[in-house]
Amino acid sequence: MFFHDRKLQYTVKVDKPNPAFAKMLQQAIGGIEGEMKVCFQYLFQAWGSRGPQKYRDMLLETGTEEIGHIEMLATAVALNLEGADMSLTDEIVGKNPVVEAVMGGMNPRHFLSTGLAALAVDASGVPFNGSWVVGTGNLAADMYANVTAESAGRVLATRLWEATDDAGMKDMLSFLIARDTMHQNQWLAVLEELGGVENVHPIPNSFPQAEENQNFNYNFITTNIYKDQNAAGRWTEGKSIDGKGTFKMEPGAPVGDEPTLGPPDPKGHAQVEEMKNSSGSIIDKVKNAL
Amino acid sequence: MFFHDRKLQYTVKVDKPNPAFAKMLQQAIGGIEGEMKVCFQYLFQAWGSRGPQKYRDMLLETGTEEIGHIEMLATAVALNLEGADMSLTDEIVGKNPVVEAVMGGMNPRHFLSTGLAALAVDASGVPFNGSWVVGTGNLAADMYANVTAESAGRVLATRLWEATDDAGMKDMLSFLIARDTMHQNQWLAVLEELGGVENVHPIPNSFPQAEENQNFNYNFITTNIYKDQNAAGRWTEGKSIDGKGTFKMEPGAPVGDEPTLGPPDPKGHAQVEEMKNSSGSIIDKVKNAL
Amino acid sequence: MFFHDRKLQYTVKVDKPNPAFAKMLQQAIGGIEGEMKVCFQYLFQAWGSRGPQKYRDMLLETGTEEIGHIEMLATAVALNLEGADMSLTDEIVGKNPVVEAVMGGMNPRHFLSTGLAALAVDASGVPFNGSWVVGTGNLAADMYANVTAESAGRVLATRLWEATDDAGMKDMLSFLIARDTMHQNQWLAVLEELGGVENVHPIPNSFPQAEENQNFNYNFITTNIYKDQNAAGRWTEGKSIDGKGTFKMEPGAPVGDEPTLGPPDPKGHAQVEEMKNSSGSIIDKVKNAL
Amino acid sequence: MFFHDRKLQYTVKVDKPNPAFAKMLQQAIGGIEGEMKVCFQYLFQAWGSRGPQKYRDMLLETGTEEIGHIEMLATAVALNLEGADMSLTDEIVGKNPVVEAVMGGMNPRHFLSTGLAALAVDASGVPFNGSWVVGTGNLAADMYANVTAESAGRVLATRLWEATDDAGMKDMLSFLIARDTMHQNQWLAVLEELGGVENVHPIPNSFPQAEENQNFNYNFITTNIYKDQNAAGRWTEGKSIDGKGTFKMEPGAPVGDEPTLGPPDPKGHAQVEEMKNSSGSIIDKVKNAL
Amino acid sequence: MFFHDRKLQYTVKVDKPNPAFAKMLQQAIGGIEGEMKVCFQYLFQAWGSRGPQKYRDMLLETGTEEIGHIEMLATAVALNLEGADMSLTDEIVGKNPVVEAVMGGMNPRHFLSTGLAALAVDASGVPFNGSWVVGTGNLAADMYANVTAESAGRVLATRLWEATDDAGMKDMLSFLIARDTMHQNQWLAVLEELGGVENVHPIPNSFPQAEENQNFNYNFITTNIYKDQNAAGRWTEGKSIDGKGTFKMEPGAPVGDEPTLGPPDPKGHAQVEEMKNSSGSIIDKVKNAL
Amino acid sequence: MFFHDRKLQYTVKVDKPNPAFAKMLQQAIGGIEGEMKVCFQYLFQAWGSRGPQKYRDMLLETGTEEIGHIEMLATAVALNLEGADMSLTDEIVGKNPVVEAVMGGMNPRHFLSTGLAALAVDASGVPFNGSWVVGTGNLAADMYANVTAESAGRVLATRLWEATDDAGMKDMLSFLIARDTMHQNQWLAVLEELGGVENVHPIPNSFPQAEENQNFNYNFITTNIYKDQNAAGRWTEGKSIDGKGTFKMEPGAPVGDEPTLGPPDPKGHAQVEEMKNSSGSIIDKVKNAL
Repeated sequence: MFFHDRKLQYTVKVDKPNPAFAKMLQQAIGGIEGEMKVCFQYLFQAWGSRGPQKYRDMLLETGTEEIGHIEMLATAVALNLEGADMSLTDEIVGKNPVVEAVMGGMNPRHFLSTGLAALAVDASGVPFNGSWVVGTGNLAADMYANVTAESAGRVLATRLWEATDDAGMKDMLSFLIARDTMHQNQWLAVLEELGGVENVHPIPNSFPQAEENQNFNYNFITTNIYKDQNAAGRWTEGKSIDGKGTFKMEPGAPVGDEPTLGPPDPKGHAQVEEMKNSSGSIIDKVKNAL
Repeated sequence: MFFHDRKLQYTVKVDKPNPAFAKMLQQAIGGIEGEMKVCFQYLFQAWGSRGPQKYRDMLLETGTEEIGHIEMLATAVALNLEGADMSLTDEIVGKNPVVEAVMGGMNPRHFLSTGLAALAVDASGVPFNGSWVVGTGNLAADMYANVTAESAGRVLATRLWEATDDAGMKDMLSFLIARDTMHQNQWLAVLEELGGVENVHPIPNSFPQAEENQNFNYNFITTNIYKDQNAAGRWTEGKSIDGKGTFKMEPGAPVGDEPTLGPPDPKGHAQVEEMKNSSGSIIDKVKNAL
Repeated sequence: MFFHDRKLQYTVKVDKPNPAFAKMLQQAIGGIEGEMKVCFQYLFQAWGSRGPQKYRDMLLETGTEEIGHIEMLATAVALNLEGADMSLTDEIVGKNPVVEAVMGGMNPRHFLSTGLAALAVDASGVPFNGSWVVGTGNLAADMYANVTAESAGRVLATRLWEATDDAGMKDMLSFLIARDTMHQNQWLAVLEELGGVENVHPIPNSFPQAEENQNFNYNFITTNIYKDQNAAGRWTEGKSIDGKGTFKMEPGAPVGDEPTLGPPDPKGHAQVEEMKNSSGSIIDKVKNAL
Repeated sequence: MFFHDRKLQYTVKVDKPNPAFAKMLQQAIGGIEGEMKVCFQYLFQAWGSRGPQKYRDMLLETGTEEIGHIEMLATAVALNLEGADMSLTDEIVGKNPVVEAVMGGMNPRHFLSTGLAALAVDASGVPFNGSWVVGTGNLAADMYANVTAESAGRVLATRLWEATDDAGMKDMLSFLIARDTMHQNQWLAVLEELGGVENVHPIPNSFPQAEENQNFNYNFITTNIYKDQNAAGRWTEGKSIDGKGTFKMEPGAPVGDEPTLGPPDPKGHAQVEEMKNSSGSIIDKVKNAL
Repeated sequence: MFFHDRKLQYTVKVDKPNPAFAKMLQQAIGGIEGEMKVCFQYLFQAWGSRGPQKYRDMLLETGTEEIGHIEMLATAVALNLEGADMSLTDEIVGKNPVVEAVMGGMNPRHFLSTGLAALAVDASGVPFNGSWVVGTGNLAADMYANVTAESAGRVLATRLWEATDDAGMKDMLSFLIARDTMHQNQWLAVLEELGGVENVHPIPNSFPQAEENQNFNYNFITTNIYKDQNAAGRWTEGKSIDGKGTFKMEPGAPVGDEPTLGPPDPKGHAQVEEMKNSSGSIIDKVKNAL
Repeated sequence: MFFHDRKLQYTVKVDKPNPAFAKMLQQAIGGIEGEMKVCFQYLFQAWGSRGPQKYRDMLLETGTEEIGHIEMLATAVALNLEGADMSLTDEIVGKNPVVEAVMGGMNPRHFLSTGLAALAVDASGVPFNGSWVVGTGNLAADMYANVTAESAGRVLATRLWEATDDAGMKDMLSFLIARDTMHQNQWLAVLEELGGVENVHPIPNSFPQAEENQNFNYNFITTNIYKDQNAAGRWTEGKSIDGKGTFKMEPGAPVGDEPTLGPPDPKGHAQVEEMKNSSGSIIDKVKNAL
């Protein structure tokens, strides 16, 4: 169950409202790198957690914190929209180039749909999508998903930090960047607890590795048509990172055959010409159906 | 530029076609853990690669390999659909419970839309979505995204392996599981080359860490309303995993104020009752607009 | 800022797990009538609230409560999936019709993607979509959106209640149905506070009604080609519900002209045949472009 | 069955084409507040109508009228695009700031995809989505959905009216605003016919209210961690709006337990570390599977 | 402007309701081959029509007819759902295998979301998507899009016809199949009027063909790595179908260079390791930024 | 199986980077007329091909070529983004109107999400959608889908060609336009091989035409309410294009009845008022349920 405090987790102040920056901030709310995604990713992982209790708890803690981050960003969007004007009237268009230019960078739905408030969309106006909420039921896979989310999230936050010189916004972003630092470390700590790379991989480590094809599990396969142009590196020689095999470089070559499918089913109504046998006459079961 | 061989990278054989398994295999084609996603994720990362040449090359190699995995799975779907019948005619419904039950587990579009072939959708029939293709322009963030993709992908493949006892399908999956093992190791090898966890984190490592808020970057914040119920673990004490701070546990508490936004803009047409001042009369600029 | 208690707002108990019911419950999580939608709808409305403070507070209270409802339902999904088996192996298919039939009604991603946990999707497996989060910036419009959400939500919950005879599930749904009753009343209470139907409508009431076309604002226009077949009712005569006009029935008839657009722009590359003038020769600016 | 007149329901005239306004108008065509949504919402409600015949008729009338509104808006978009130029050639970029700025506000697909015509998308370019078409099969819930649609729609139309000073566009919008006034009243008239708030609520009124949890159906639950900070109002005391209960304020508190799920299923391939029993050894059925 | 007759364009009768067939029929309503798509495709093409008036008229006629087809199919869905039961109660599950099996093939939202009526979704429950509405502003391209739609639509309708033995449904589908025959012919007639294949192609025919690369416009490029394995056919020799060139077979070979992009921008915060120059030290502008 | 050459199929050179053009190019990558769509459309058609082998081969050839076109365009996007600056800092906003205006036309995610690289989205930022990948299992329907794709694609490419005066971009587009010419011809060649229009249509030609309703298969039905206003043309008289019927013009008129659905099911919880019989009392089975 959840509770709230009306105050924000951290100060949100906008010195000079900027509707184009409001649009950019939406990426951190409703984008695939955004807070709605991490919030629900951690909460759904918690709610479906079947392993040791402590991971459920930890996920619940941080998922709950993230709701407050959406709140901070939604507030920042609204504050950046104060006084925004989407009007295309004569007094504006063609007279005030700055207003116009900024208008070009504004999300029109910030005026039309919400009357100057945040939306559950990204910086292009594309709605948040529940498919982004990843919880595999495998703790290690989920921890990587979470490190990824906090890494992409911190990259995004540093770009937003570069894009503004508003002191209030830079301060808020400096807080969010710090939290992303912690959260990266936090999910890495779980991976360390799970035994580190050598114990964790290959994920899932509960699948008997003897069942995987032993001829292909540590080979770097190249698809370059020039056999001598290879992308050699740490991944083509030496012990594999999981310690369970030896890297090898191998030119790609097909092992399988050319696939052949049966003729079309008469009920599926391909063209008649697709349903002939090798001697060129229509296959019997098609003829009967016609 | 790309080329092809008509033969498959690995053998695809279906001993006993099963349209319900065809539906499940779609998750590995068009799902968020699927091959279309990793194929395009690696290719777009390669095409946008601005770092050292060798990473572009490596991404291009593996992205190209993955096209062949989509091909294998699409073939497997078609072979599992051989002879499938979606007819709801009397001779079937109510007479052959096995056919019916399997039909319940079939994707109707495998008959209606493709005439017994694969679709660019997941196991629920939800279309592949380009938003899943992640390339941040930061190599380390991308490598985590790729380890995540291969981990979720290998978990998925092992579940598909469990769900079938068709020898051909188990063999194909055993190959794909092996490739996922390699690919997990491969992206981890890049992370090792980049200096390992302590050099790589926090991602991006090019943002001056002095600019992030120093009071919040290594604190595990709890949001539990019971202060004594804490989710202690490796993440609440000791040196941080990136080696740049010390973990600390801290009960969450708001630092920010209650947010207050300005009154609604008259042009946004809130209700009149929302546009009153503290003494209860309608604010002037609204009155004028009315 | 947000906090949590590890306990659920209300008891969630499943007496007899049923994966088909788990799939149906997803509608109440990630569907357009579901809890993710209302949760974010109320929270975004709160965060963008520009009117009197008390409405922000109230929205924040109930938005926060709804997070706990998602939690209850996600728990119910996981419990209904306990022991579920998506395997299509011989020991199951064709041997156990009940298992098979239920399997037909299961969401395969509950096994493949989450390992038996809830997803952020609806009962068809379609992901939650941020476009459903409606906050117009007009309090009355938003209250109607909220009454609508709680009405559709309560209808859904009663249907789920009918679909199960699991005592635990019926008890949980009985709680959620009760909360929907309250929430319907709560948003209606705001509409009453705003002065009731006659003061509230037409929404927005801050637009000067003199500016709307006075010939069409209280007429029920019929489009039936038989002029004597009319859909008379309360809406065709008497005082309008908002008290500001008189209902009138009127056969639909076009007032506008046939629309005519200019010829295609040469840069847009329509076919040449579309760019001829009335005498049949290609219009000059096209000819020059060719 | 449907028929048409080539003339428009109301005059559509654009005095000064403006491609940025064309983009904004798209919200009224393909947005969640737009005419495609209401058109199909009313028509699907009519086609699925199982109650008294007159509601089906009325929905069919207004649904049919709305097709003509899409037509008017699509015409308005095309007229606003007359002469638009998306070219980024030297003669334009850097020379004509007004053209450039407006271009920044134009939807590029209005040139690239349609050659200067309307699209089935919203003002951000996000396609119309069939999930927005709501028909619950409960007449009262649907009427609220329809009042909501016409309220959000009228708010949108007034904002578009504010955003332009083109006389033709203001006249067209003045007509659409008038129709929204009527349609709000019309759906409210059905609610009145159904007996008004006290008879209609809680929706659905066909569910025996005795079955809902009586301890929670008229309580306003606060989630504020400060017990004395409450959001009191009409919704916390007095008779409930539906006349069937008494409002009460109540601090939120969990009634349920901490949820506990069973251990991961071996076939789901969680990490081994998640499948240990309380004494730390791997649970038997996992060990056997490995 | 649009009008309606309460009667259906053609008889819709269901002899034996079948909820699994209702789900399949949804593909013809809200699927990419469905009637919502063609309806709006023709109407948007009409509304944006800038060529000769008669094509606008014709598109308007058929677009209007298609609304009536959606109506027929929505009615057919509702009739197929009469008496459907999604209940998972004991009296049904495990007792009545036929009911269960059919239930597995039913769309649960037909009960949960609409109370037994049609949805604006396809057979997988995926919502109709406005992106499918294609109108390029080039009449010939649009006519091909329309032939395609009617071809895929007729294929779908014949498959639905095969899948049912309900006489009423077969009769309705026989009507829709006939209309698809006409509509295929109708759009082909426009292509004939535009001068047939040789005048129409390459589309757009208003682009000066001299501007296209003359070395690549009639060559069939093979990407097969075995140069002697070629896919010869009508497309590899002889006069091109548009009569403007000669087909030629050519093994694919890159003409371009390896692409090289500039180093990452410091503001984009790639990893430091990606921003080194050839001698291995960090590039200056990055060093300054750090 | 697939292979690659690191070099591009054709030269990609950008003389003067332009981030607004980068945004426009995205339509050719991830738009419904774009290369991701055709690439997967041809590959999925190949992989599901059940007809004569040579069509599978040909589809595979061209599908593979198209991967290289995505690569070229992704490279072009990255090159157009070189040096782009999304910063909204004082040194830019209000000082440099050209930069600002271009910024208004830039996709913010090109900076925020990828650090100046291509995305799998269209020119509005809407993600590529797998539903666009059409393969019906009927070769003729698929060939029309492919001609359509190459026609819309060539129209798009000519518009992009018009929109830029960058010599490098014009050269690249001139190549892509040439390939679209070839590909249009190529799919038309298959239709010729299949016997041309008279043999191919109506698609599918394997459905016995005697089963389609003979009263409606060659009639142009008008829905115009003015019987004398008809859209006569080639499609209203003479032999049908498929040579199997005679065109006829016919005023639309309903043949079907008014649809009537049964009363709402009690378990679906419509309002009580919808469940009354003709004498106005609640229908029995509802009364019992209450």
